[in-house]
Amino acid sequence: MKNVVLASTSTLHGETYLSYLLPVMKELFAGITEVIFVPYARPGGISHDEYTEKAATVFAAAGYKLRGLHTFEEPAAAIRDAQAFFTGGGNTFLLVKQLHELGLMELLGAAVEQGTPYLGTSAGSNIGGVNMQTTNDMPIVYPPSFQTMGLIPFNLNPHYLDPIPGLPHMGESRETRIREFQVQQDLPVVGLREGSWIRIKDKRVTLEGALSAKIFEKDKEAYEVEVGAELTFG
Amino acid sequence: MKNVVLASTSTLHGETYLSYLLPVMKELFAGITEVIFVPYARPGGISHDEYTEKAATVFAAAGYKLRGLHTFEEPAAAIRDAQAFFTGGGNTFLLVKQLHELGLMELLGAAVEQGTPYLGTSAGSNIGGVNMQTTNDMPIVYPPSFQTMGLIPFNLNPHYLDPIPGLPHMGESRETRIREFQVQQDLPVVGLREGSWIRIKDKRVTLEGALSAKIFEKDKEAYEVEVGAELTFG
Repeated sequence: MKNVVLASTSTLHGETYLSYLLPVMKELFAGITEVIFVPYARPGGISHDEYTEKAATVFAAAGYKLRGLHTFEEPAAAIRDAQAFFTGGGNTFLLVKQLHELGLMELLGAAVEQGTPYLGTSAGSNIGGVNMQTTNDMPIVYPPSFQTMGLIPFNLNPHYLDPIPGLPHMGESRETRIREFQVQQDLPVVGLREGSWIRIKDKRVTLEGALSAKIFEKDKEAYEVEVGAELTFG
Repeated sequence: MKNVVLASTSTLHGETYLSYLLPVMKELFAGITEVIFVPYARPGGISHDEYTEKAATVFAAAGYKLRGLHTFEEPAAAIRDAQAFFTGGGNTFLLVKQLHELGLMELLGAAVEQGTPYLGTSAGSNIGGVNMQTTNDMPIVYPPSFQTMGLIPFNLNPHYLDPIPGLPHMGESRETRIREFQVQQDLPVVGLREGSWIRIKDKRVTLEGALSAKIFEKDKEAYEVEVGAELTFG
């Protein structure tokens, strides 16, 4: 049974790292003692060790041991043997490049499809979509492919931001960017606001958390779905 | 003699397309009758024809004929024979993919290095840098390479935005993204605010326009350069 949480962000404004997700983790990781951490997105360029330590502190307080995937001599075996996964945010290009180059993207996806619980935040949620092509991140490295795990039949846009009224900025809005993507690929995109997450339990995919999400389907006006709603498109 | 303008944006808030750049164009395109337009960035997914028509209207009023590069049976020959170039904004991934796949990126760079005047805005300016890896755009297509023309020995970040005070958004700031890039590549980045442009005359590279630019060099605190200053790093 697929058992997945894909969250827009790790941290809410004014809160500490992962604190708003602790109740979600308790449910997702029920009965689990050790979680494998995928640190490759390296926010701010911190090292894999530093990033793992940051996450491990929070996980330890919640009662889980966290081990960085980068510490295993055979990461493929670590993925196959894992009780659960957490992939943190940072740069999606870095994360995807590393997973592909190590041959781990498909293995990770297969393990999650087979029921190993998975928590993603930000970049770690992006890779739950069909591809990473609706990320907000900068292309700081060149991945061999933009394909990701495809745990859901659509893409995510984490940290979704509504246009800011009165901001005299002529760069493209988030909606414009997503629409440009859909000229290229007919794939629905969920604009996931900070404080919300996608919950996958087997075949049931729902929106959870604090805020409604904005749904973009090609050639349709964007619309909101409310918290608790099932996401059935794609 | 290299003769180039790389502008942050095509359009200032409340103004019409290219209007603030008309005096710059008059100087850059002095003595020129026809400009070749590179429409591949396709803002909002509009067609190459639509985009060319939009730009041609403004150029016609200023006294220049504009022809879309996509209308030539042999675009390589069109680039070699061109009097001048204008590359418009839109999606940098699309622009770079098309130029590489048609084998035109190096030809375009070579023509500009040899003195054919070049105007770029936004995505069209990004490709003047060493690579496109400090674009703000979404990776809506997968280009065969991120390399660009390298008219300057640094990268640009067009539409540079300072952090917005009080915005409770936990996505990465522009500076954080640029710093993450510099963990990967030791390349200076110019945060080019809307209303400003880079002017290249032979070996002299200056900042022009309305606003100072923010300069990011690896392992140095970011600093401002004023309009008129020569950009000598990189």
